[in-house]
Amino acid sequence: MDRVQMAEDLSFSRIVHGLWRLSDWKFSDEELITLIERCLELGITTFDHADIYGSYTCESLFGRALEKKPELRGKMEIVTKCGIVLQSPNRPEHKSHHYNTGKKHIIASVEKSLQSLKTDYIDTLLIHRPDPFMDPEEVAEAFSGLKAAGKVRHFGVSNFKSHQFTMLQSYLDLDLITNQIELSAYHLENYEDGTLNLCMEKRIAPMAWSPLAGGKIFSGTEEKSARLKAALQKVAEEIGASDIDEVLFAWLLNHPARIMPIVGSGKIERIERAAGSLTYKLNRDQWFEILQSSMGHDVP
Amino acid sequence: MDRVQMAEDLSFSRIVHGLWRLSDWKFSDEELITLIERCLELGITTFDHADIYGSYTCESLFGRALEKKPELRGKMEIVTKCGIVLQSPNRPEHKSHHYNTGKKHIIASVEKSLQSLKTDYIDTLLIHRPDPFMDPEEVAEAFSGLKAAGKVRHFGVSNFKSHQFTMLQSYLDLDLITNQIELSAYHLENYEDGTLNLCMEKRIAPMAWSPLAGGKIFSGTEEKSARLKAALQKVAEEIGASDIDEVLFAWLLNHPARIMPIVGSGKIERIERAAGSLTYKLNRDQWFEILQSSMGHDVP
Amino acid sequence: MDRVQMAEDLSFSRIVHGLWRLSDWKFSDEELITLIERCLELGITTFDHADIYGSYTCESLFGRALEKKPELRGKMEIVTKCGIVLQSPNRPEHKSHHYNTGKKHIIASVEKSLQSLKTDYIDTLLIHRPDPFMDPEEVAEAFSGLKAAGKVRHFGVSNFKSHQFTMLQSYLDLDLITNQIELSAYHLENYEDGTLNLCMEKRIAPMAWSPLAGGKIFSGTEEKSARLKAALQKVAEEIGASDIDEVLFAWLLNHPARIMPIVGSGKIERIERAAGSLTYKLNRDQWFEILQSSMGHDVP
Repeated sequence: MDRVQMAEDLSFSRIVHGLWRLSDWKFSDEELITLIERCLELGITTFDHADIYGSYTCESLFGRALEKKPELRGKMEIVTKCGIVLQSPNRPEHKSHHYNTGKKHIIASVEKSLQSLKTDYIDTLLIHRPDPFMDPEEVAEAFSGLKAAGKVRHFGVSNFKSHQFTMLQSYLDLDLITNQIELSAYHLENYEDGTLNLCMEKRIAPMAWSPLAGGKIFSGTEEKSARLKAALQKVAEEIGASDIDEVLFAWLLNHPARIMPIVGSGKIERIERAAGSLTYKLNRDQWFEILQSSMGHDVP
Repeated sequence: MDRVQMAEDLSFSRIVHGLWRLSDWKFSDEELITLIERCLELGITTFDHADIYGSYTCESLFGRALEKKPELRGKMEIVTKCGIVLQSPNRPEHKSHHYNTGKKHIIASVEKSLQSLKTDYIDTLLIHRPDPFMDPEEVAEAFSGLKAAGKVRHFGVSNFKSHQFTMLQSYLDLDLITNQIELSAYHLENYEDGTLNLCMEKRIAPMAWSPLAGGKIFSGTEEKSARLKAALQKVAEEIGASDIDEVLFAWLLNHPARIMPIVGSGKIERIERAAGSLTYKLNRDQWFEILQSSMGHDVP
Repeated sequence: MDRVQMAEDLSFSRIVHGLWRLSDWKFSDEELITLIERCLELGITTFDHADIYGSYTCESLFGRALEKKPELRGKMEIVTKCGIVLQSPNRPEHKSHHYNTGKKHIIASVEKSLQSLKTDYIDTLLIHRPDPFMDPEEVAEAFSGLKAAGKVRHFGVSNFKSHQFTMLQSYLDLDLITNQIELSAYHLENYEDGTLNLCMEKRIAPMAWSPLAGGKIFSGTEEKSARLKAALQKVAEEIGASDIDEVLFAWLLNHPARIMPIVGSGKIERIERAAGSLTYKLNRDQWFEILQSSMGHDVP
């Protein structure tokens, strides 16, 4: 599996496994251990979490597996996030849904993530959403402290637009190493508004969430989905892919920005297909045919 | 009263008094002197003007007060603006409404402002609007000349988007010290489009005009206003504010960008309430509740 | 004729002649030579091409003229472009319309342009459109190679938004010297979205395509066109211009960004009128009247 150098002392697997829906899968610890081991065998070593996934439960489920099989921790990179405050039975003290990127909240959130994940360190911590009430000096202090304490190795952001990224970066004495953004052939916003270009300009590789557009394309009920599905099927035939999900991954993977798609599936076959899509090479006719089917018009 | 360090040798009071409607108030010189003195007692030492306010009359009204009580000048900072050309009986030579940021116009405008305000220097001069016909080299020459002559101490802009700010700044050998922009819980554009973030990135404190959204929220006739009014009233009760105007000021003042709201009232009670709002601390639940009532939807 | 310094060793004429529609004019080689010579007499020494113009035929038509009168080459600057792949009977190998800014394509395109134009060097090569699949490292390698080989003197882009420009520039060890963009009193997008401001910030002079808005204003059928036409006619009378095309050119030429309009006409009278429009000085009342008639509302 290709790897992407994220920092001098850190690399991610090109395909990242996402644990967003782990609690929905109703896995036993053994089933989760099996899934993790199969991912590692495929070369997928980077696992994407957030404090809030599964209403604050997914990190703990993952941590239980790590506790049962501690040797797994050293074979993987753990990404997690903080900054969203959700109302949840698991956080009765939360009175409303909002963002919190205050120093105290970031540090407390990391401490909880470490406990839940049964680990001593997080490989990369992301601010989950751009907080319009952010005090960048507090973020800087929180990051420096967590880094110095060895609790977080590197830092990044998620869903940040360019002006949010450069503003926060200007307050930090360490480099943000990624921006995890929504990117797919269906969702072109970050291609078009400069977010992806800023990643390339800053030489950081973006992580792509919802690389399959959450299943919208498979149903193909909307006009845009139907158009895109037809183009993807045509290209699937041309390149010998077995289904359009592989083409959707290949469309991201062939882009020069070193996009790392997050596969959020609990089914090993689907994860294998994502990993397999790394072998497909799209030519420019194909890449643009997919782009144009999504836009609904030709490039000028 | 909190103060904001704008430059090594200049600070503004956190609440700024705006003279936009001075001519409407029909004050005698004595009444204006009283208002100014009450502001100074409250710690409000920064007064915001523009050449065009009151159809080119407000600076003169203020200057008459300064002439009668010259000791006031040293206790205050005067901000004024240039660059808009208005048709007015007081400027019969103006044939149309447009912008002029030519060197000659800027210098002539400052000379007139100095005469009207009965002062030898302006603390901060702002370009009032981004001029699409701006020659930044002319602005740079005008600024340097005015600075060298001791007529203007510092310079800034108003209503500039990020690309307009960075373009102009790139031609100047002095730092723009502020951007006076429309900011309120009602008007979120500059929060969302990166204008406020650029201020934070450049470490400049923005001045906020129309912090109460020009009274739109108080009437509460539109859906957005009604929604916002309800949220503000709820928070007012929670924090013990006497009315929603105090919450609107507090919403700006609690933001980490060191926003300086401009209070454009001739009524001392209203100015006192603005000053008093500095004591209110909004928690994140409250700050986001107001934000979300303005957006009409939750943050993602 | 005014000239614009584009690089230490390169200047363009302020008015550029565009060969976009050369193949439509059905010129004999002699007629084209005459047109070129008349342009040169007017001081118009910069000629704007693209590989794709006339479905890949215009460069060759121009090259035939240069071959018949080789002494013309040294008196002119040739700009051409690459990066769009068009379906054409002249390129049967092209299976779809897309962009290609790969190293191989850029180099092959320049080789073909050199052959077609019967010249040893291109003064300035532009990437024709921002390619969403661009690998900036490949562009950088292609540019460096072409520069080292003496085949292209300087490089620029066309139709790039700010984030596309700064991203590509960050990968190059040479400076992009221009951005050829759509600019006219009718088409204000690049004025408003920061594209023109970035040119000013980077000290590069933009080339303006479609400076007359492709004739839309002359017909005056739409509301916007009718409004703009009336304003242009009023200003034409005031400045003594013989028709509104001169005012449209003057509107661009009077702007401080050193905009270089491209005149894409085969009729020498029209080209003379463009050149003549350099003498018209618009005052701010006039410049803004035209702007505001295009926007459909006053500036704030």
